[in-house]
Amino acid sequence: MKLLFDTDPGVDDAMALLFLHRHPTAQLLGITTVFGNADIEVTTRNALHLCERFGITAPVARGAALPLVRPPRGAASEVHGDDGLGNLEGPWAGTRAPDARPAHRFIVDTLRAHPGVVTLVAVGPLTNLALALAEDPAITTLVRRVVVMGGAFGIGGQGGNVSPVAEANILSDPHAADAVFTAPWPVTIVGLDVTHRVLMDHACFERLRDQGGAEGAFIWQASRHYVGFYGRAVGVPGCYVHDASAVACALRPDLFSLRAGPVRVVDQGLAIGQTIQRTAGRRYAHAADWDDLPDQQVCADVRADELLALYEQTLRR
Amino acid sequence: MKLLFDTDPGVDDAMALLFLHRHPTAQLLGITTVFGNADIEVTTRNALHLCERFGITAPVARGAALPLVRPPRGAASEVHGDDGLGNLEGPWAGTRAPDARPAHRFIVDTLRAHPGVVTLVAVGPLTNLALALAEDPAITTLVRRVVVMGGAFGIGGQGGNVSPVAEANILSDPHAADAVFTAPWPVTIVGLDVTHRVLMDHACFERLRDQGGAEGAFIWQASRHYVGFYGRAVGVPGCYVHDASAVACALRPDLFSLRAGPVRVVDQGLAIGQTIQRTAGRRYAHAADWDDLPDQQVCADVRADELLALYEQTLRR
Repeated sequence: MKLLFDTDPGVDDAMALLFLHRHPTAQLLGITTVFGNADIEVTTRNALHLCERFGITAPVARGAALPLVRPPRGAASEVHGDDGLGNLEGPWAGTRAPDARPAHRFIVDTLRAHPGVVTLVAVGPLTNLALALAEDPAITTLVRRVVVMGGAFGIGGQGGNVSPVAEANILSDPHAADAVFTAPWPVTIVGLDVTHRVLMDHACFERLRDQGGAEGAFIWQASRHYVGFYGRAVGVPGCYVHDASAVACALRPDLFSLRAGPVRVVDQGLAIGQTIQRTAGRRYAHAADWDDLPDQQVCADVRADELLALYEQTLRR
Repeated sequence: MKLLFDTDPGVDDAMALLFLHRHPTAQLLGITTVFGNADIEVTTRNALHLCERFGITAPVARGAALPLVRPPRGAASEVHGDDGLGNLEGPWAGTRAPDARPAHRFIVDTLRAHPGVVTLVAVGPLTNLALALAEDPAITTLVRRVVVMGGAFGIGGQGGNVSPVAEANILSDPHAADAVFTAPWPVTIVGLDVTHRVLMDHACFERLRDQGGAEGAFIWQASRHYVGFYGRAVGVPGCYVHDASAVACALRPDLFSLRAGPVRVVDQGLAIGQTIQRTAGRRYAHAADWDDLPDQQVCADVRADELLALYEQTLRR
C-alpha cells in the first residue's frame, strides 16, 4: 500500500510516522509538512529529523505556513512543547534538505505518477490538500483514498478539544477542511469520536521504551511532555492516539465502523471549526448547505484494543 | 406554583397547556403567544380557542410576529397542519379577545406584579422573552425560573430536528435565544437531548381519548396529523413529548438531571440555530465566547416513564 503522509510533527505525528514506517505492507512515498502543532519551520525540521532518526528515506516537502483565510491561531506549545517534540534537546538539526517543490505540488506530482493507488493520510491542518485541489482538481480522480485525522461529530456526545465543538486540526484551517471534505474524492475522517476511545496508557509507553529499540525509547522520551499535558489538563492516564489512529484506519479500515453522509465545516462564528455531517438518508427542513455533495465516511466506532495491539506489535517488530 | 406560558400552538403546545391547566399545584397567570409552528394570527387564535375549550380563564397576550433579526422561516404546516392544530374543523373561531398589551409588556407587568415567584415556561421561539428583557432588564431579578423547550446539545449524540445541529424553536429566532440564555437569570433548557427520550405511544394516546374526557378526546383528534408526521418522516410510533416535557420540568424538576455551564446560540452560517454549552469546569484554548456568562442548566437526562405517567395521570384526573 503506497502512502503519502501530510503531517505537522508534533509528538503524536512522530508516533504515527514510526508506525507507518515500520508497518510491513506500507510503502511511504513521501512526507509533506504543514504548520499546526508548531510553525512550519519547526514542523519541517522535525519531519527531517524524524526521517534521519527512524531511517526513512522518502522525500520531505515543506508545505503551507499559514491557513488559507483565517489568521493563524498559534503553535500548540502547551501540548507538544516549544520544539514540537516534547522539549528534549531540540531545536533539532538535520543534515537532510527538503524536496525543492512545495508540498501541494509534491502531492499533485506523486498522485499523477501513481494514479489510483496512493492513499493520502493527513494528520494536521488540511491546507496542503486544499492547495493541491486548487492547483489540480483532477487529483480527485487519481487518489485511492484520503484519510484525515480531524474533527468531532458529536457521536456518542463527543465534543471538540479546542472549543466545545471544534477539534484542533480543523480549527487551524476550517476553509481548507471544508474544501477537502466537499471535494469529489473518497475521504474517511478519523475524528475525536474515535480517537478519544483509543487511550495509550503508561504501561504501553513503558513497553515501547523497553522493547521497541532506540525508536521506541525516543517515542517514550518525546511523549513525556505530551503525556504530562494529558494528565494535567485532560485528566487522562496516558494519551489519546490521534494521528496513529488515522494511519491505522488507512492500513486496517476493518478496525473502524463508518457513518456515511456529506460533511461541511463551519468557517465563522461561535462554532468555527466544527465538522457537521448530514447523515445519509436523513431529511431536514433546513440543510440545503449539504445538498449535492459527495458522501464521505466518518468513523463512528473503533476496536480500540486491537488498534493498540497492532500499534505496539508493529513498533516491537 | 405561579406560571406564565409562552407558546405557539401547535399540537404539542395544546398538550402542554392542558397538562399545565390540569395540574393541581400549577396556577397559570397568563399565556403569551408567538409565531412559530404557525403565523402569529393563527397561534393567537389557537391559544384563545384552547382556553375556551379547556376552560382556562387566564389572559392571552399576543406576541411577536417575526424574529428579531433573521427572516422568518415559515410555518411548520407539515408537522402541525395548516391551522396549527392538526387540520380539524379549523380555522378556529374564538369569542374571547386577547389582552390589550403585547406579550413582552404582559410578561414584564406580570413579573413585576409577582416578584420572585413566577416560573416562565417558554415552548416556542424566544422572541417575546428577548423583547421583555430589552424593555426591562430588571426582570432577570424578578423571575423565579425560566424553563425553555428548545435546542439540542449533542448529549448522547443528539442532533437537531430541522438541520443536523439545529432545533426548530431556536432556529426560528437564534438571536432571541442567545439573548435569553446569556441573560443573568436562571434558565433550564429542555432540549431534544431529553425530549427525544420521551415517546408518547399510540396506546397512551388511546387511553387519553377514552379516559381523558372531552379534552383528552380533543388531544387525540388534534394529534392525528402530528403523529402521522412522526410515523412518516421520523419513523417513530407515536410522538416525542417536547412542550409538555418543559412543563414537567417546571413542575417536577426532580425528574431531570442537569448539566451546568454557559450557553450560546449560533446566529449565522452552517450551524445557525445550534445551541452550544461550555460545560462548567471544562477549559478550552478557544472558547472566550462563553466567558463571563452565567451558568445555565441543560437537561441531560429524564426519567421518561415517570414523566409520561405523570402526564397521563394529570389528564385523567
